[in-house]
Amino acid sequence: MLSKEAPIGVFDSGIGGLTVVREIMRQIPNEKIVYFGDTARVPYGSKSKETVTRFSRQIVHFLESHNVKTIVVACNTASAYALNELEKEIDIPIIGVVKPGAKAAFQTTKNGKIGVIATEATINSKIYSQYIKELSPDMTVIGKACPLFVPLVEEGLLQDPVTDEIARRYLTELIDLDIDTLILGCTHYPLIRSTVAKIMGEKVTLVNPAYETARELKEMLTAKGLLQMEAPGLGSNQYQFYVSDTTDKFIRFANSIIKYGILSAKQVNIEEY
Amino acid sequence: MLSKEAPIGVFDSGIGGLTVVREIMRQIPNEKIVYFGDTARVPYGSKSKETVTRFSRQIVHFLESHNVKTIVVACNTASAYALNELEKEIDIPIIGVVKPGAKAAFQTTKNGKIGVIATEATINSKIYSQYIKELSPDMTVIGKACPLFVPLVEEGLLQDPVTDEIARRYLTELIDLDIDTLILGCTHYPLIRSTVAKIMGEKVTLVNPAYETARELKEMLTAKGLLQMEAPGLGSNQYQFYVSDTTDKFIRFANSIIKYGILSAKQVNIEEY
Repeated sequence: MLSKEAPIGVFDSGIGGLTVVREIMRQIPNEKIVYFGDTARVPYGSKSKETVTRFSRQIVHFLESHNVKTIVVACNTASAYALNELEKEIDIPIIGVVKPGAKAAFQTTKNGKIGVIATEATINSKIYSQYIKELSPDMTVIGKACPLFVPLVEEGLLQDPVTDEIARRYLTELIDLDIDTLILGCTHYPLIRSTVAKIMGEKVTLVNPAYETARELKEMLTAKGLLQMEAPGLGSNQYQFYVSDTTDKFIRFANSIIKYGILSAKQVNIEEY
Repeated sequence: MLSKEAPIGVFDSGIGGLTVVREIMRQIPNEKIVYFGDTARVPYGSKSKETVTRFSRQIVHFLESHNVKTIVVACNTASAYALNELEKEIDIPIIGVVKPGAKAAFQTTKNGKIGVIATEATINSKIYSQYIKELSPDMTVIGKACPLFVPLVEEGLLQDPVTDEIARRYLTELIDLDIDTLILGCTHYPLIRSTVAKIMGEKVTLVNPAYETARELKEMLTAKGLLQMEAPGLGSNQYQFYVSDTTDKFIRFANSIIKYGILSAKQVNIEEY
């Protein structure tokens, strides 16, 4: 029997998933969150399905040990590669960022042409296309891997001529194919939203799965009677952050994404889970 | 008692160490090599000393299980962070790429001003500076982290205006400080040697630790009577490649670096070592 009071588990390959945490904090502010970022083994986006699934399974075991009431896979690559497997293996609800993003794009498009930018792994999985075509087989979905976006964001080049140039190269074929909706299919990409928006032009609507995922999470918790209605008491340790590498760099970066001051995080040997 | 016939163990965070393997193949072609690339957990250059040391220790255990006669740490970050620890823990000789690179730079410089470009981790460790100042405390060593070089190389932008622009930003302060010698302190960097050379100009000599490491390895094996003088027989499986992620992508990339055709590699669950 799951309890309303239990925390929500959220995980990502590293720090990008904090953009999803930020949305959850905004939309359902009474919830407790246990976050895990796999900073020792980041990134996932260039790795195989088998490896991403093995890593994700260890993290799910870790989150289960915290008695979470549900798990949010706040990483597009892990959602694309591991979610279907993990869903079969555990008893609590688990949601990813891909399905909510796909649904929102489907609801947004007018001309039926949707672009997806993401890691190599997410694009290779073709999962956005699969979900969108389940909603309507008439949709055209064009995926484009953008492997340099994550390093550019992590180098802090959010608004920079180099990022503009790389974005132009990646995005030109999507513009040529006349898409009207573009999914930001990696949790780092909302941080360069303005660059992408500038290049795509105003006719193209950008979809941020982080926002949609938090909305779907709220709906799911409400439907199952698991939504926490009251703010947790003082000293209840509402937000807990865990990482697999040391914590100093994570804390610095986390505080640039999340307004809530992240003062501490704990290191976990995730290979033991 | 170590045997001449035993293989040399070489490891790296991923594929970059193959530039060191290439040099070993050239300089001591009779040796057997067992290579391990930690492709599931790559990169190391942005991670902590503790994590890099833990990962490196697992790999050393794996290589020991192959009865290697010596180990080459073909990764600057692992050499910077883990080599001193590992040296104390094992009975066979182990060498890294940093010391040979530092020595070569010391022998090359005329004005005593040496630059080092490398990952964030290698630069933060200050290890190149430490080794060079042990040779002569009068040397000036200026380190510069270049975190975008590895992703740019892996994206294939070896000769590209974007790589030029990023290189110019990283290297300008080294030019301004009038260095005459520059260490390519990451195994990926020899692949953009021509870009770096163009920007630094002809007054600056580039030092490639991969070359120096193979030379030092040969000297060490000779001194210890461990150099293999005869070519291994047919069917002796001279070169063996292991990785922690699946093998397909590794094999593709490996064949672009090494002329010897790499037809196969094996996947290892390195967390178990």
